[in-house]
Parts: sequence; C-alpha cells; structure tokens
Amino acid sequence: MSISLGNNIMAIKAAIVSIGDELMNGFTIDSNSSWIARNILIYDTIKICSKVTAGDNSDNIKKIINDLLTERYKYIFITGGLGPTHDDITKHTLCDYFNCELKLNEEYYNELLKLYSNKKSNLGHLKDQAKILDIGKPIKNNFGTALGMVVKSKQSYIFIMPGVPREMKGMMNNFILPDFFDKRYKKVVNHSTILTTGVYESKLSILLKDILKEKTNFKIAFLPSYTGVKIRLSSKRGFDNDRFLEFKKKIVSKIDKYVYGYDNDKIECVVARLLVQNKLSISIAESCTGGYISKILTDISGSSKYFKGSLVTYSNESKENLLNIDNCLLKEHGAVSKQVALNMAISVKDKFNTDISIATTGISGPDGGTKNKPVGYICICVIYKKNQIVKEFNLVKDRLIHRQVAAHVSLNMLRQLIK
Amino acid sequence: MSISLGNNIMAIKAAIVSIGDELMNGFTIDSNSSWIARNILIYDTIKICSKVTAGDNSDNIKKIINDLLTERYKYIFITGGLGPTHDDITKHTLCDYFNCELKLNEEYYNELLKLYSNKKSNLGHLKDQAKILDIGKPIKNNFGTALGMVVKSKQSYIFIMPGVPREMKGMMNNFILPDFFDKRYKKVVNHSTILTTGVYESKLSILLKDILKEKTNFKIAFLPSYTGVKIRLSSKRGFDNDRFLEFKKKIVSKIDKYVYGYDNDKIECVVARLLVQNKLSISIAESCTGGYISKILTDISGSSKYFKGSLVTYSNESKENLLNIDNCLLKEHGAVSKQVALNMAISVKDKFNTDISIATTGISGPDGGTKNKPVGYICICVIYKKNQIVKEFNLVKDRLIHRQVAAHVSLNMLRQLIK
Repeated sequence: MSISLGNNIMAIKAAIVSIGDELMNGFTIDSNSSWIARNILIYDTIKICSKVTAGDNSDNIKKIINDLLTERYKYIFITGGLGPTHDDITKHTLCDYFNCELKLNEEYYNELLKLYSNKKSNLGHLKDQAKILDIGKPIKNNFGTALGMVVKSKQSYIFIMPGVPREMKGMMNNFILPDFFDKRYKKVVNHSTILTTGVYESKLSILLKDILKEKTNFKIAFLPSYTGVKIRLSSKRGFDNDRFLEFKKKIVSKIDKYVYGYDNDKIECVVARLLVQNKLSISIAESCTGGYISKILTDISGSSKYFKGSLVTYSNESKENLLNIDNCLLKEHGAVSKQVALNMAISVKDKFNTDISIATTGISGPDGGTKNKPVGYICICVIYKKNQIVKEFNLVKDRLIHRQVAAHVSLNMLRQLIK
Repeated sequence: MSISLGNNIMAIKAAIVSIGDELMNGFTIDSNSSWIARNILIYDTIKICSKVTAGDNSDNIKKIINDLLTERYKYIFITGGLGPTHDDITKHTLCDYFNCELKLNEEYYNELLKLYSNKKSNLGHLKDQAKILDIGKPIKNNFGTALGMVVKSKQSYIFIMPGVPREMKGMMNNFILPDFFDKRYKKVVNHSTILTTGVYESKLSILLKDILKEKTNFKIAFLPSYTGVKIRLSSKRGFDNDRFLEFKKKIVSKIDKYVYGYDNDKIECVVARLLVQNKLSISIAESCTGGYISKILTDISGSSKYFKGSLVTYSNESKENLLNIDNCLLKEHGAVSKQVALNMAISVKDKFNTDISIATTGISGPDGGTKNKPVGYICICVIYKKNQIVKEFNLVKDRLIHRQVAAHVSLNMLRQLIK
C-alpha cells in the first residue's frame, strides 16, 4: 500500500488509467492524467506511481486493473469509456472483472429525465448513463450525463469518471477531492514555480550560486523555454510549509528584476493587472506579430478597461496610409527598423489617444531575411506617457515561436517601464 | 510477438514508454507518445498495445521494460531521461537492466566538439551525451546533443530517444521510420478525418444514414466540437487502400457543402490557399475577436501575399474615429449590430484597399450581455468584391471558445463566398 519516500516518510500509492482508442492512437492528447496528477500531488504522502493508457480493449483494461490491485495501489483514477456508444466499455469490463452487475441509479436517472425531458428520443441512452456497478457508490456528473462511481476493493478505492475533461474535473473538484482527500490528508505546498524572463539560465545559476550550494530539503530545477526560464522549486513530502515559502522568498530576492510572475501566470495577465491598477489605456501597432499581442491582451475578460484597439499594418502601404509613416523613412531605413517602430508607436498612440502604445516590426520568416536583418530580427517600441524605449533583438528563427517570443518581450518591456 | 486483429490478420505489438518526473507529476503534458502513436499507426499490422509513463525511478523503469519484453513486444519506443543532469537516468537504468556498459561514440563526440567548440566548459557534459549502451547502435540527434540508440534484445527493438519533442521527432523522421519501418511495412491509409462545419451531428447522420446502415469493414465516428463535427473514418488493418478511399469519397459526396478540409487542415489555411489561388487580398475589422482572426491568418508563412492589415476597434470611440462609423448608427443600433458590422467591413475594405474584408462585433462575455443581445451574440460581415453577407449568431457563452468559434465561422463564411 505504501512506499518509502526517504526521511522515514511512507507514501501512499496512486495510479491513473486513461481509457480510449483515441488516446492510444494518439489522435487525442491525454490531458486528464496530467490534471489529476497535479491535483493529487498537493496532498501530503500521496504519490502517483503509475500512469497508463488503455485502448478500448476489455482484456487489456482488466489486466491493468488487476496489476494495480495486486500491487496494492490505494487510489486508482480511471477516466474514459463511460459514454453511450458501443466502444464505451469501461463499466461492462469492470462488472466482468468484479463479477458484479450494473444497477440503475433511480434518483440520478430521474434528474436526467427532468433535464432532458424535451428530448424524448434519448430516454434509452439516459438509462444506460445512469447505471453504475452495483458494488459502487455514485459520483454525480454536473456537466454531462454519465454517472461516475467509486468502487472499494479490499483496501483500494477506484474512481471511475468520464473522459470529457470538464466532466472529470467537475467530479474531482466537487466530490472526490473534498470527500476522499481534503478530509484525510494535509495539503502541502510542495511545488512552486518562479517565472523569469530576459535572463539566461547560466546567469541565474550565478546569481543563485550560494543558495544552490546550501544543503536543504528543497530541490531547484531550471526549466528554460523560449520565453524565459522557469525555476521550479519542490520540497520533499512531509516538509514544513513555512520554511518552503521562506526559501522561495530568499530566491526571489536575489533575482527580483527578472521575475514577472509565479506558477500559471501569463505575461499578458501580469501586464493587464498593472494597467488596471494604474488606470492606463493601451493601443498597439503590429506588423510582424500580425495581431498576436492584441489577441492575447483581449483573451482576458474585462480587457476593454485598458485595451482601446490596434492597427495591424502588414504591408508598407498600410504603414503609410493608416499609420502615416513617411515613405522616405521606409525607404531610408526599411520597414523593419527602430525608426519605423518608433513612428508606428507614436502614431498609433495618437490615433487611439491612449497612455501607452507598443509597436512591433520584424522578420518572422521563413522568408524575408537579409544579411543585416536576418530572419528573427525585430524592432520593438514601447511608449508610456513621455518615456519611449526602442530596442532591436535577434529572436528565434521559427515563425510561430518568433511571434510568441516577440509578444512576450514586448509586454515585458512594458511591464518594466510601468514598474 | 503478435496478436490477432480478426480476419486472420496478426498484428505486431508496439509499446511507448515516456520517462520523466515532470510527466508523472502532470507539470508537462505528454505529447510525444501521441505523436509516435500517430506515426506508427500508418504501418500495416503494427498496433500500439501499451502506453505507459514512468517517473525518474530506476526500479519502475526496469519493471516496465521487463514486462514489455516478457510480453514479447516487438517495438518499444522510449523517450526522456537522456539529458545531462542527475535526474536523467534512462541510460544507466538500462545498462543495469541489460548488464552492460556505457560506451563513448567517438565519431558523434567529435561532431559535438566541433559544433560546441566555442563553449569549452561544456566538454564533460558533451562526453556523457555521446555515450550509449555498448549493446546498442547510435541514432543521430540533429537537433540537440543527446545521442539516441536502438537496442536489440531477443526479438525486440528498443528505441531510446530524448524527451525534447523536436529531437525525438528528428530521430523518428530521419532514422527510425525510414530504416526500421518504411523498409519492412506497407504504409496504409487506415484513418482519415473529414472536417465539417456549420452542421449538427444529427443532420450528418441523417444525410449519411444509408451509408451508415451498410455493413462494411470501415468504422465511422462523429467527433463533435465547438467549431464543427469531425468525421473519423477507419479501416481494419490489412484492408484495401483503394476501397477505403472510395468509401471516403462516397461519404464526402453526400455532405460536400459542409466539408472544409481533411485531417489536420485548419480553416485559416484552407482560406489562405483560396486567397492565394484567386490572387485576392484581405483586411479585417475586429471588435470582439480582438485580433484573433488577424493572428491566425498571419500565423501562416507567406501571409503577406493576401493579408494587408486590420483595424482592431475595441472601443466605440475607435469605431467612430478609425473606422468612421457614424455615432448615430452606434446609438441607434448599438455597437453590436448587423448595421455596424456591415459598416465596419465596408470601411476597413476601403481603408486597406482590399478585395475582401471581414468584420466582427459581438459579446464574448462574461459581462456585457443584455436580454436581446446575450453573451455569445455576434454579428459578422464578409464582403467579397460586390457581394456582402451579414449574419448574426448566438455562439457559446465561454469567452475563449466564443472568440475561437467566431473566427472559425467568419473564415468559413468567406470560404463559402469565394467558392
């Protein structure tokens, strides 16, 4: 039932089984198992020790469940195969394995009938959706029709949920986590991520070298990506929460200027919060980013508080006609130049009458590069009231990543300027 | 080594093992295993029968490999754990399991030294990256430092690759698929997806009811999503390619007007091809979509051929000042109205001097809805030369999905208009 975690701490084993031919064939990427793992990790002493995918194949599913029960896993999370079609075989397979029957849950069935009373043709399929193993207890589905269940077998709990992420998450959040985990286990902060940008991993390790040398119960991992380096901190299970937070604080204090957020923060949300707090409005002139910055800023609900609009000027004519960029300037310096970026930012700020503007002009590729301005080259201008910053960068040469990084860099320039 | 696929066809078993604590903990979603599965599925008679994730835990990895070899899997794909840090344990674990040693691959090491000659400090780590099991054969890494390998054990081939998707894909595409699969197995079309939009699943089943009734060796699955219904066709392995394609053609002929593409097509790429073929230019006036349509159209390389630019007018003032929308029109009909959408499209088309324009104005939510125009309501206008279409829709009430669906619907309206 448990394995050693060191320090005399024993862990309780948990497993995740994702069922479905679509997952096995790779047509659907399994995000459920990651979500479950992340949400179980916060409970002290529970450890995910097995993550398996099974196709819609009864023998295979039975073998997997049998192995997990034999290896005395305490918690087994199963998702998928509860739907109404012929290839949804999870319930029948488990009935077979446990030698039990499916039983209609009258209460839930009546609820479904009420909800779907205007669709008479679906009665039969609803009945199947409301049946669970007679040895199981129901787990209500607030976002779909398939009833979930929990089955206790010897010392193991098997949670059986639909594969639709929203339905699975609803069952986990509303019933399984509060009823089975919150009541029994302490929640611990054992993972935290510090998000940095504009700094290399090597520089970070130099800045943190004293802390890295210390022997602690904490683990530091650097996870570099195109938009920055994430620093993932983890503590051993059973370790003190307060000391972990103190440790995190100590790290942040050494690298403060590069930190733009934590955990799942996004740069656009960080900037949006700053704009709202300071009651600032923004407009954007986008060339190479082609609407990317506007898109991510307006993904955020309530963005009309700060975002006024953008001009995406993808051609020279549109830069001239809509942003009044001087033809001579375009000829002399080229559309991708600091001078043009500056004038785009000035012009768009004026047209939308905002406190702030950003302008981007660059070469995302794959074509259009020259010797002096290769693919990846970009000029970004940020204006905040009377402060103007124009910078040039050589970013990655991959088109999609170039656009993503350009947006990230632009918003980070703005973040630093406002701060 | 093989299992029955029915029809007297025997399948060769393949397994995918993804290694890494980040995967086990759910901080990283495993897309590698899906990619490998999809790329192996096209080979006749090979079937992925096992997909497992393992943390950075030596005993667990050994147990998984041992089980797969015992169950006589012919192909085992391992990704992850080949990096230079202490938690990359794949190679050492396998050395232990196979009772062999790591051996430096001099040729590859020299290549790395040449490539990284300016970074002398990395020599030690490069040496480790160039070592493979002495019973293995090297697989070159064109996108990173870790050398991959293939190990033959009895009748099984174990491919060991890095977890970085680009490096894994490089090894698969350049070496493993051509050398081990293309030479031995027939490639078959056994899956195909027909992409439809603007039609419900129920309508599709009525249109296809005669075909659905027929007893064939093909399987039809409807996969509904917010942007349309995908129809996935699959044939049993070992089945005739030509008859499968014929079957697909027959289905498409019944639902032609709803089909916008196949397999991994995206609506923006379909539209982009049409624009290029017909030498048409486009501009966009975006309100609720906030740059989304411009962004996806310019994700495509070469988009400057057709995309001239956009005006993102997120406020009423910007609609008035930059798109010259009459204040009276805004007051009388509201910013979210067919009249305003039409005038936005006319104005942007004129300003950017393009053949085509699209305009969107709607309520993506979560706030801003009224009784007559609830969250989800949107007006879209498409103008192609002298043809104008303005339509209103009540789309989903989820902000992010609303924007995505709005972009999809707009581009599909344009696709139909050009056709």
